[in-house]
Amino acid sequence: MKHITVNLENKSYPIYIASEGWSQLSRAIGGKIKGNKVLVVCDENIYPLYYNSVKSVLISMGYRVNPAVIPPGEVSKSFDKALELYTHALEARLDRSSSIVALGGGVVGDLAGFIAATYMRGIGFIQIPTSLLAQVDSSIGGKVAINHPLAKNIIGAFYQPDAVFICPDTLVSLPSREFATGMAELIKHAFIADPDFISWLEENMIALISRDVEALSSAIHRSCLIKTGVVEQDEKETGLRMILNFGHTIGHAIEAATGYSKYTHGEAVAMGMIYESSIAMKMGLVNQGYINRLSDILRRAGLPTQLDTPAWGPIVERMIHDKKNVNQGIVLVLPTGYGKVSIIKDLNPEQVKQMLQ
Amino acid sequence: MKHITVNLENKSYPIYIASEGWSQLSRAIGGKIKGNKVLVVCDENIYPLYYNSVKSVLISMGYRVNPAVIPPGEVSKSFDKALELYTHALEARLDRSSSIVALGGGVVGDLAGFIAATYMRGIGFIQIPTSLLAQVDSSIGGKVAINHPLAKNIIGAFYQPDAVFICPDTLVSLPSREFATGMAELIKHAFIADPDFISWLEENMIALISRDVEALSSAIHRSCLIKTGVVEQDEKETGLRMILNFGHTIGHAIEAATGYSKYTHGEAVAMGMIYESSIAMKMGLVNQGYINRLSDILRRAGLPTQLDTPAWGPIVERMIHDKKNVNQGIVLVLPTGYGKVSIIKDLNPEQVKQMLQ
Repeated sequence: MKHITVNLENKSYPIYIASEGWSQLSRAIGGKIKGNKVLVVCDENIYPLYYNSVKSVLISMGYRVNPAVIPPGEVSKSFDKALELYTHALEARLDRSSSIVALGGGVVGDLAGFIAATYMRGIGFIQIPTSLLAQVDSSIGGKVAINHPLAKNIIGAFYQPDAVFICPDTLVSLPSREFATGMAELIKHAFIADPDFISWLEENMIALISRDVEALSSAIHRSCLIKTGVVEQDEKETGLRMILNFGHTIGHAIEAATGYSKYTHGEAVAMGMIYESSIAMKMGLVNQGYINRLSDILRRAGLPTQLDTPAWGPIVERMIHDKKNVNQGIVLVLPTGYGKVSIIKDLNPEQVKQMLQ
Repeated sequence: MKHITVNLENKSYPIYIASEGWSQLSRAIGGKIKGNKVLVVCDENIYPLYYNSVKSVLISMGYRVNPAVIPPGEVSKSFDKALELYTHALEARLDRSSSIVALGGGVVGDLAGFIAATYMRGIGFIQIPTSLLAQVDSSIGGKVAINHPLAKNIIGAFYQPDAVFICPDTLVSLPSREFATGMAELIKHAFIADPDFISWLEENMIALISRDVEALSSAIHRSCLIKTGVVEQDEKETGLRMILNFGHTIGHAIEAATGYSKYTHGEAVAMGMIYESSIAMKMGLVNQGYINRLSDILRRAGLPTQLDTPAWGPIVERMIHDKKNVNQGIVLVLPTGYGKVSIIKDLNPEQVKQMLQ
């Protein structure tokens, strides 16, 4: 079992990556779960797969366990669902010393984390991410949120978990498109911070795609190390942490402009990285070789590298309203070489549009 | 203008008490308000009284100002109202660098603070409390919350403001019963921490009741110093901060058992302090003289000291479900002398009921 410690100003917590499977859960998180009552939040897809395994381990450790099962998908990150979960927590008599366990993908982690952050002003919180996206990205760093009808992730908090337990076994049965969406963030981590990891990914792509658990464990470990290193230096995203948004300014705008239905988050980010890299190339920051290498890796991971029908007007319009933008200029994270990016602020929307066309 | 600094681990912020009035607002909080867009949250009663004064000052300092006006009273601390305020914030184009100003009493501070804590994972927050309760208690210490249909203040956060501006002028027109509810918390502060302040209150009660602004400024200043001292030592209420709950375990139970309509919060706390003191007397911690002195001050401040019809069954039932209780024992903060209290845990509900009867 691999192990990373996230060191933050007020709190440190462990991330465990257990290629040995669920059998390690008790060893990993025993002593990390606050209180004696636990609400396990999972969706209808995850519940039949893993709930019983997790429940048995928790019960054997002496916890009282209740499940809260939500419908799968982004639709659950709503006010209504949050209210339901608070009710669940009250009915299960969770008190200030209790814990919430998020067992699932990014949606479950974001929603359950927001409940943990705000129920009785904050209770215990454990992440057991089961999708690649959640394992390499969303379960780490403490960003939790629900959606407002007008804007995604607009209601949230920075709330660090007490422990993260990653079981790469869960990826074996993950549908290809969901697997690929996680690969986009994993590839992003390599390209913003670790040239050696880029080479490693090129060499091990076949093992990853065929869901080799050892290869996955190594990739997740390296990816988590990169994200953790960034989060440790800038927990609340006031500066450095923005580098994690490589591909995301354009990616988010693509998602929004296509109604969050045509592309997965990772697919939009993959295209976002290519388009942002081409802006970087026009600004003389990287060359065509960089774009080719990035495109090649993304394609091998099953990700798109360009829009079918680019409609830049509405996409740039969405970029102007990105919540990372302070005032009206566009902020982009642009590559400046392999494993290196820079945050470029106050870009003129018209100029950005011209460079994209 | 008096001035207190609240020193917390990650953040320090000032509290200003301006007996000179609104004219000091710009001097006090200029430079403390983040960003350039401000949403001022106030209720329908406060809006016609003070919104324009505050708006003019903010505009003269170069801020873009939008109002969000809510109905008065606890009913506004709801999910629906929170959703409306998030929408307001989005429509006013508040970004991560913007601020929310809470202009009003405890309800406005709690609700606006919860929005500030969670909108885009936390934006700027300024408290301008206009009720005595908010000035001496709820605006200080960072507790923000909204209500769940099944339980009050169950959804919240610890979120410290960037500055607190107190204008005791606002108390001159405050209805008597609202004034008295604030006096209960002020008197509580004296009894938990400062015997000299008890004597001062006895000597200055007439000036306070007749709303002498200088006397009020002094009392607010002393009260804020006591609360600040406690909060600085235990921001997240893991220990010492519980002493602020003197009178509150029984007080909250009285409020809940009477449907939050018969008594104001301060009235319930006043009775709670007397009942908790009588438990302390039965346990040999204080004598009858203590209770007489506390009762006398409370009565002079216009507060009740006993229930019309004590029905202890439902009240003790509510005490068992107090969110400060970890597991099933009752936690009480009991006086052990003038300006001294102790936190007593794991009390048996039956015993508590017997001592109350």
